[in-house]
Amino acid sequence: MLIVRSDDDQDHHCLELDSAELILSWERPERSRFVDIATDAAGLGEVIPPLPFDRMLVETVHEPAYVEFVEHAFSRWKDEGHAASAAMGFGWPARRMRNVRPDSLKAQLGYYSFAADCSIAEHTWKAAMASAAAADTAAHHLAAGARSVFARCRPPGHHATSDQFGGYCYLNNAAIAAQRLRSTGMNRVGILDVDYHHGNGTQDIFYDRGDVAFCSIHADPMVEFPYFLGHADETGRDQGLGTNLNLPLPHGTGADTWFAALKSATDWLTGLAPDALVVSLGVDTFMDDPISQFRLVEEDFTEMGRRIARFDRPTLFVMEGGYATAQLGQNIAAVLTGFAGTS
Amino acid sequence: MLIVRSDDDQDHHCLELDSAELILSWERPERSRFVDIATDAAGLGEVIPPLPFDRMLVETVHEPAYVEFVEHAFSRWKDEGHAASAAMGFGWPARRMRNVRPDSLKAQLGYYSFAADCSIAEHTWKAAMASAAAADTAAHHLAAGARSVFARCRPPGHHATSDQFGGYCYLNNAAIAAQRLRSTGMNRVGILDVDYHHGNGTQDIFYDRGDVAFCSIHADPMVEFPYFLGHADETGRDQGLGTNLNLPLPHGTGADTWFAALKSATDWLTGLAPDALVVSLGVDTFMDDPISQFRLVEEDFTEMGRRIARFDRPTLFVMEGGYATAQLGQNIAAVLTGFAGTS
Repeated sequence: MLIVRSDDDQDHHCLELDSAELILSWERPERSRFVDIATDAAGLGEVIPPLPFDRMLVETVHEPAYVEFVEHAFSRWKDEGHAASAAMGFGWPARRMRNVRPDSLKAQLGYYSFAADCSIAEHTWKAAMASAAAADTAAHHLAAGARSVFARCRPPGHHATSDQFGGYCYLNNAAIAAQRLRSTGMNRVGILDVDYHHGNGTQDIFYDRGDVAFCSIHADPMVEFPYFLGHADETGRDQGLGTNLNLPLPHGTGADTWFAALKSATDWLTGLAPDALVVSLGVDTFMDDPISQFRLVEEDFTEMGRRIARFDRPTLFVMEGGYATAQLGQNIAAVLTGFAGTS
Repeated sequence: MLIVRSDDDQDHHCLELDSAELILSWERPERSRFVDIATDAAGLGEVIPPLPFDRMLVETVHEPAYVEFVEHAFSRWKDEGHAASAAMGFGWPARRMRNVRPDSLKAQLGYYSFAADCSIAEHTWKAAMASAAAADTAAHHLAAGARSVFARCRPPGHHATSDQFGGYCYLNNAAIAAQRLRSTGMNRVGILDVDYHHGNGTQDIFYDRGDVAFCSIHADPMVEFPYFLGHADETGRDQGLGTNLNLPLPHGTGADTWFAALKSATDWLTGLAPDALVVSLGVDTFMDDPISQFRLVEEDFTEMGRRIARFDRPTLFVMEGGYATAQLGQNIAAVLTGFAGTS
């Protein structure tokens, strides 16, 4: 299995509002290190860097004005003289308010986000672009014939919409990869999001399109972030009607329930006959994850990989969440070795 | 001029996210003390406490489920074991997300708000209810024949919608007063909001109603909170079409421009012939206000009172913002003495 990764994420860390306290984000630089060590130890295959990239790469799924905003938000923040080490909004265009883009930076930080668990710091743009480039490069290789590729992305991407950051995500790596696969001539791409949290950004980007089918297994948004999307009755719109499937599960979900949902997901995806599969691979479904409430264990991740392999499509794994940092590497490696048949 | 006030706000203070730092809110208990000292010194008239009140009072303009939420949010927060001294959300139902009310407290804190400059602390409910009661009691007296009444409300109210807190506001005191005046038989009530910030909550509550006309003079939402409402093209809807007027002004606005807007506002209100006037009286238009960018001085506040008196309707002043705490009292007193003709 080819692995695409970059160290350009290592300077990216930012502030998070968590239970009315400002903390350094749970989404930390060492996450990458632990994953790289574990995947190297598993001997999965060749490791390559992302191809050179530019902003056109991300404007395939993001609004150019949003991309411009993410690139320059932190320098504008510093120019305004704020002391805090990351730029964060404080007001959001909630219901019955208007989505007219304001001029001020503080306002745009709200306009272009949906959560305060995520902020834009000095090295965020570089990391987000490198992460997107890893996903895009992985897609190139999958399109060129690889059976599977792992894009070790950080920051994650699946919460980012076409014009909003949130949930530690700025650019939607899985969506960028899926769009790249489409542009190489595949008729339909399936996205399977196994992160603990609903991939609201990915759903939103493809909600009215039938050429990219999105399926997510996640904690019920009634009790878990992102809260305001991810319900079972969201099935797509217009050309995308019938190509969106949400499988929300309750707190405390263990392997039996989770794998039953995975079967529903792969059965549904089979019916849509995608040419390739993008897996949004979060392992915050792990029982010891510090901010999540599912109960999968390491062997379950191996089994997850095996079952995804049985779906038998060219498969691109894009790393998403997982915050039990010390065990993150072995859980990611377990999925990949399960898939590769090397465990 | 009758003054209605309560000390039940004195224990209410809470956390505010300001430029990616958590601070004790600019909206502080001593604001009331400074105003009480200055209005007492001005000898404006009798001071009375609010009448006894219950939640029915606020459910005239707020969703019962929202009122229930505000009442119990802090005890739920403590029951969940959070260390922070105030309950604050971190995710909001921004554009293209759904307004399905989630079950979890953290999610509901986002569902029922639009900003993180405002949180719910131990004594918030008591203070908000006493503040609403002061406005309601003032309306009773105005309906009974008083020419003018000052409700020294704290916390302020004009940002609170029927089901959202934000901008230091939880219950919309001005809206509650206007609704009370309507229920006493007045055909139409006018609301003049002179706070530096747009009264988005008041506008939202009456936007589709013709019986309460709302007019606001405020900093342009393109550059100032609440950012996502308060534009000049918001003129009302359905029965309320033509009974909403926004007069956004640029940063740096001084007396000449401000009073020209006031003339537009009172001319417009005259055309709608309200039986009474509710003034959302924020004095954060003051040149030394720490979080605002207009340039009014104390003599301008006296003149403001005189001009409002010339509108010649029974007038209920409801206190809103103003964060230059030491000068807050004299600026409020200047408006009221200008109105009363005692200066």
